[in-house]
Amino acid sequence: MNLSEFELIHRIRHQRPTAPDRVLLGIGDDTAAVRPTPGMALLVTTDTFVEGFDFDTAFSTWQQIGWKSMAANVSDIAAMGGLPLYALTTLCLPDCRTAEEIDGLHEGMDRLIDHIDLSISIIGGDLSGITGPTVISITLIGETEPEHILKRSGARVGDYVCVTGHLGASEAGLRLLQHTRQQPDRSLLEPYADTIAKHLSPVPRVQEGRLLADSGFVHAMIDISDGLSSDALHIGHGSRVGLSIHADALPITAETKAAAQTLQVDPVKLAMQSGEEFELLCTIDPNQVESLASRMADQTGLSLTPIGEVVDESEGFSWIDTNGIHLLRAEGYEHFR
Amino acid sequence: MNLSEFELIHRIRHQRPTAPDRVLLGIGDDTAAVRPTPGMALLVTTDTFVEGFDFDTAFSTWQQIGWKSMAANVSDIAAMGGLPLYALTTLCLPDCRTAEEIDGLHEGMDRLIDHIDLSISIIGGDLSGITGPTVISITLIGETEPEHILKRSGARVGDYVCVTGHLGASEAGLRLLQHTRQQPDRSLLEPYADTIAKHLSPVPRVQEGRLLADSGFVHAMIDISDGLSSDALHIGHGSRVGLSIHADALPITAETKAAAQTLQVDPVKLAMQSGEEFELLCTIDPNQVESLASRMADQTGLSLTPIGEVVDESEGFSWIDTNGIHLLRAEGYEHFR
Repeated sequence: MNLSEFELIHRIRHQRPTAPDRVLLGIGDDTAAVRPTPGMALLVTTDTFVEGFDFDTAFSTWQQIGWKSMAANVSDIAAMGGLPLYALTTLCLPDCRTAEEIDGLHEGMDRLIDHIDLSISIIGGDLSGITGPTVISITLIGETEPEHILKRSGARVGDYVCVTGHLGASEAGLRLLQHTRQQPDRSLLEPYADTIAKHLSPVPRVQEGRLLADSGFVHAMIDISDGLSSDALHIGHGSRVGLSIHADALPITAETKAAAQTLQVDPVKLAMQSGEEFELLCTIDPNQVESLASRMADQTGLSLTPIGEVVDESEGFSWIDTNGIHLLRAEGYEHFR
Repeated sequence: MNLSEFELIHRIRHQRPTAPDRVLLGIGDDTAAVRPTPGMALLVTTDTFVEGFDFDTAFSTWQQIGWKSMAANVSDIAAMGGLPLYALTTLCLPDCRTAEEIDGLHEGMDRLIDHIDLSISIIGGDLSGITGPTVISITLIGETEPEHILKRSGARVGDYVCVTGHLGASEAGLRLLQHTRQQPDRSLLEPYADTIAKHLSPVPRVQEGRLLADSGFVHAMIDISDGLSSDALHIGHGSRVGLSIHADALPITAETKAAAQTLQVDPVKLAMQSGEEFELLCTIDPNQVESLASRMADQTGLSLTPIGEVVDESEGFSWIDTNGIHLLRAEGYEHFR
């Protein structure tokens, strides 16, 4: 398929309705133009996904790839406590990509946006051919109150380290898909539907991020994209504090534990290393964790689990299980290459 | 060279000073955060450059490729009458890229920014491996007064069509480089230094774009990236007007005319088709062209040349030379593939 036909699809896709009060100028001029909300800070992030490095069409449909590309960008805005508003989507397409595949990619992005009930306008992008793998690059712009920006560097000694939702499923899902790659019997995967879905179509925590940021009791936040251990260390180093994580406290579903058993891996290790979870990891005033957790359960249905404490920098980074105290290392997620 | 070493370079590169009053958060957290200027509209653009499609290392150094990638994005902001402020730079790098090459790429971007005396902060980006060609993707964010945004769609019947600087050199420069590719004697290119420089290191017209937008007498504007004929048609279709272009009025330097003779091509055709000129094409109140041209010459040293008129939609698109009236077609620049 040639590029001009893609261009047509790309333009049609961009007829997704935009917010007319904020978007002064959408696709079709030299730049887009938007009107920032007075008093708000702009949050800007970009993430690029290269076929063979960041996604594998052996495991994911193009819809799932589109969903996950958008989810990763949305999760970065969520981790700052922000609301995503404007996206620019760039595609580098080799000749072999079909119109159906590109439609699927766009549909996946749209579905993720609709699934979490966001109003993201696609205001621009670019399209190029490539003699090589498909490249998807998204830039996402959001807003938040400047005083509510949740950085990695605000953790305070005594804070509880907390995490939204459950951990380990993304990595377990990927390993299950790899494990059964050669096996025609797909029913082997049926008991692990939620775990695999978490790998293929993760849901970023925008509403939860807003709730945490608005509370005023959260001091540092990050999304789990590299893995709990790596991302915890980002907070630790960024805030110049130590961390103590309790292995027994990690929220892992019964299904993910069963998957770990099937895969013959330690579920705690899975939970520590699993990347692209897109859960939020934050440090909270210890007196406020319970009320915040109950508010989150009420408003979004998601759990907020304390998994450790912020300690003095001199105490370093540790994780504790029934065997004793261990050094916390950045053994997070590595891309499947 | 492996990616983590590149990552190091990438991070060092990003230590370019940022404007602390506007940039709340630069590289190193989940997103960047900036404070928009109250009352201003945001302009957002993104352009991607794929090795083998958009650039060719046989003709350009990595510095020149970096310069031109940034210039193309800056030119889009200039075409709206805006001021570029924040950039995100994404690189997909195959294993064969060396640290020197990537340094050169970044140096080229910086040199362009410094050359036109802009204060652009690099606030983010992404880095990935790729089993394929080098991909450079830049997102650029700027600001302008909402009432000064210069769209393609504002041209009025009776306006003069004007262009900054000179035309044809970018395409002539490329053809000279292609022409002499097999010839070891580089001195053949010496008489055409300015023409070749325009192809390799074009200068976007930010100051000129601001002057034109601020004047209030310019009704539509676009940058010449596809070629004069194509981009004029963009204004024509966008504004629902006709256009009449005078071939004899096109500003072409004596050097570019000499290059056209060497290449045995019609200089007017070159000027009509040459893409990536990054000059500004605009339509102006006919009574104000002279004073605007003299103000631009005073303030920036660049020429502003009337090359035609905006006519009624029913009169269509034409260009006129000594042989008569011809149909204006989108025969602009095609990528060298």
